[in-house]
Amino acid sequence: MKAEPEIERLKATLAENKKELDALVLQFLPKTHKSKQISNLYEMMRDYPSRGGKGLRGTLCIMWCELFGGRREEALVTAAALELFQNWILIHDDIEDKSDMRRGAPALHKKYGLELAINVGDALHGKMWELLLTNSDIIGKEATLEILSEFANMLNETTEGQQMELAWTTHNEWDIDEEDYLLMVTKKAAWYTCISPSRMGAIIAVRSLSSLTQATSFGKPIHAIITNQGKRDKHPNGIMERLVGLGTDLGISFQIIDDVLNLTAEESKYGKEILGDLYEGKRTLMVIHLLRKSDESTRSKIIGYLSKRREEKSREEMKYVFNRMKEYGSIDYAIDFARKHSEKALSEFDELTRIADGGITSDRCLELRGLLEYLTNRDY
Amino acid sequence: MKAEPEIERLKATLAENKKELDALVLQFLPKTHKSKQISNLYEMMRDYPSRGGKGLRGTLCIMWCELFGGRREEALVTAAALELFQNWILIHDDIEDKSDMRRGAPALHKKYGLELAINVGDALHGKMWELLLTNSDIIGKEATLEILSEFANMLNETTEGQQMELAWTTHNEWDIDEEDYLLMVTKKAAWYTCISPSRMGAIIAVRSLSSLTQATSFGKPIHAIITNQGKRDKHPNGIMERLVGLGTDLGISFQIIDDVLNLTAEESKYGKEILGDLYEGKRTLMVIHLLRKSDESTRSKIIGYLSKRREEKSREEMKYVFNRMKEYGSIDYAIDFARKHSEKALSEFDELTRIADGGITSDRCLELRGLLEYLTNRDY
Repeated sequence: MKAEPEIERLKATLAENKKELDALVLQFLPKTHKSKQISNLYEMMRDYPSRGGKGLRGTLCIMWCELFGGRREEALVTAAALELFQNWILIHDDIEDKSDMRRGAPALHKKYGLELAINVGDALHGKMWELLLTNSDIIGKEATLEILSEFANMLNETTEGQQMELAWTTHNEWDIDEEDYLLMVTKKAAWYTCISPSRMGAIIAVRSLSSLTQATSFGKPIHAIITNQGKRDKHPNGIMERLVGLGTDLGISFQIIDDVLNLTAEESKYGKEILGDLYEGKRTLMVIHLLRKSDESTRSKIIGYLSKRREEKSREEMKYVFNRMKEYGSIDYAIDFARKHSEKALSEFDELTRIADGGITSDRCLELRGLLEYLTNRDY
Repeated sequence: MKAEPEIERLKATLAENKKELDALVLQFLPKTHKSKQISNLYEMMRDYPSRGGKGLRGTLCIMWCELFGGRREEALVTAAALELFQNWILIHDDIEDKSDMRRGAPALHKKYGLELAINVGDALHGKMWELLLTNSDIIGKEATLEILSEFANMLNETTEGQQMELAWTTHNEWDIDEEDYLLMVTKKAAWYTCISPSRMGAIIAVRSLSSLTQATSFGKPIHAIITNQGKRDKHPNGIMERLVGLGTDLGISFQIIDDVLNLTAEESKYGKEILGDLYEGKRTLMVIHLLRKSDESTRSKIIGYLSKRREEKSREEMKYVFNRMKEYGSIDYAIDFARKHSEKALSEFDELTRIADGGITSDRCLELRGLLEYLTNRDY
């Protein structure tokens, strides 16, 4: 665990970035229209982006960009689009997962009905691509297209992960092993939370430095910035590949901790329902561990409880499952699992910064390392 | 009405294009994955694109491109992405409009549940952008970004139109005049059916000719292709603006005819439920006309019937509304309204081809004119 002042500093940085990115998004989104209905659409589109959040993804993109020597200003649109991505996809996820609450307030479809909410999600999704097209004037056509391609890939991974999880619920499937779970969580969470933001930061940095080179004879060969120096021909994208590995470990750890917090955090801090994942019947690492460790009759009982429709589930039944998790050590198991992946991610980070750019040892390196550590050590 | 052989030739052209574009889309979409759930996702993503359709939007894009001297091969990816656009947005529309059928088979959410269907729509939406990024190797970075920008704008318009229509239904609003209706239908239908496909064709043509100029000294100034010759500095985008006007008139006419067919077509040809729009409570021009012409008590009765929840509506009630429409001349009024807009669109087309490129009089011109005429004269 990091020292208290360091964590406070990180939280302040996250909050500042989030404020700046939200302002950029809200500035970009339309406000009013002569048609009352379209004005209402704009209001709904601005709802989730106005609810705050941690700003992790945007901050990761900015920090990775700066780590590789890129300019913060050049990463802002992409970072803001990452926050926008989360907003539109959460509107649809909340419908799909039957979540009633989002960031301390009713989910969008609870406020306006699912028909309007689906369309709001699509409208906001479109705005994400439109925002990304404004990158053209900032980072040039080539990098703009590269970033768009990363977004398309991120969305492929995210929808595949969401499909896995939804299919398990829809078909009442409980015969899931850790391998299935890790594939799902890598696709559903690791890509858009960790892998893509870091890769996008790296892409923008390369372009920043390339323009610096042209402008000021800064003089470093472009690819050497993101590959092992002196080996640029052999592994020109070595670092981009490493960011997949690092982000996968980090994202797995992040999601498991998120699921642990869903069971154990204080409701006021967390902003979502406590035990909400059990009401949703979500297949978490804790549930998979619990089912593996239970005898046949307990297993049947737990599956029976978790398979019920949300509105038929009682507080007692959910508490029963939660207490079995504590009894069988499922929560400790998950925390330990997350810790191992987090440690692996940090040592990958150390290795990466050692070989990149002839070794990076700046304050920015420490700051980003601190953020990666915090991601899997947070209390809400 | 066009002569029978000419219409048959047009239908054959549409069918050929549709076949080629569907093959391109289905080739691009993923097929199988080691995860059973993800393979299922792919199967669902391929469902609507495998159901056929008229291929109007893709064909319009190709024909406009060719009209301005562009190369068919350079328009194919964009035309295919237009078909993909329709497929993903129809998945969401069918949920939002509570449609049970699509092209003669159950709507996707009826087959797989709305949770999975929403996610399939998002996955397919992402694939549309990914497909458009492959344009880069075909039409270059600059035109690729221009086409992406047209898609973003098209989506803005479409979601705004959808919002207007959904809000009327959700808030049980019937006090709608023709101006509201025309704004809705321009946004919801004209943009993605007519305006954007034609503009995209024109963009690709300019780029085709520009590369020809570079390659072979073909020699025409780029902007002269799409503006009044000799006035390129003054109205460099004159034609692009004209395509908005033309496409608006054409799209309004197209949608009204679509709504008329919903009431009058043979079910086997149409592929959707007959009177489905009345069950949906859709605000069509016929409904607006009928409510305007009815006395207070008939108006209340009709609104009462149309406002009921879909499953509470009886065949008799819907037949009652339909018969009042015939009695009050609402269907004839709509057909006449559509015809006027169609004629306006055709004279705009004639004016446009007269001033563009020093006058276009090729066979392609006649072929496209025939298609525009057919769009608003079809029987299914």
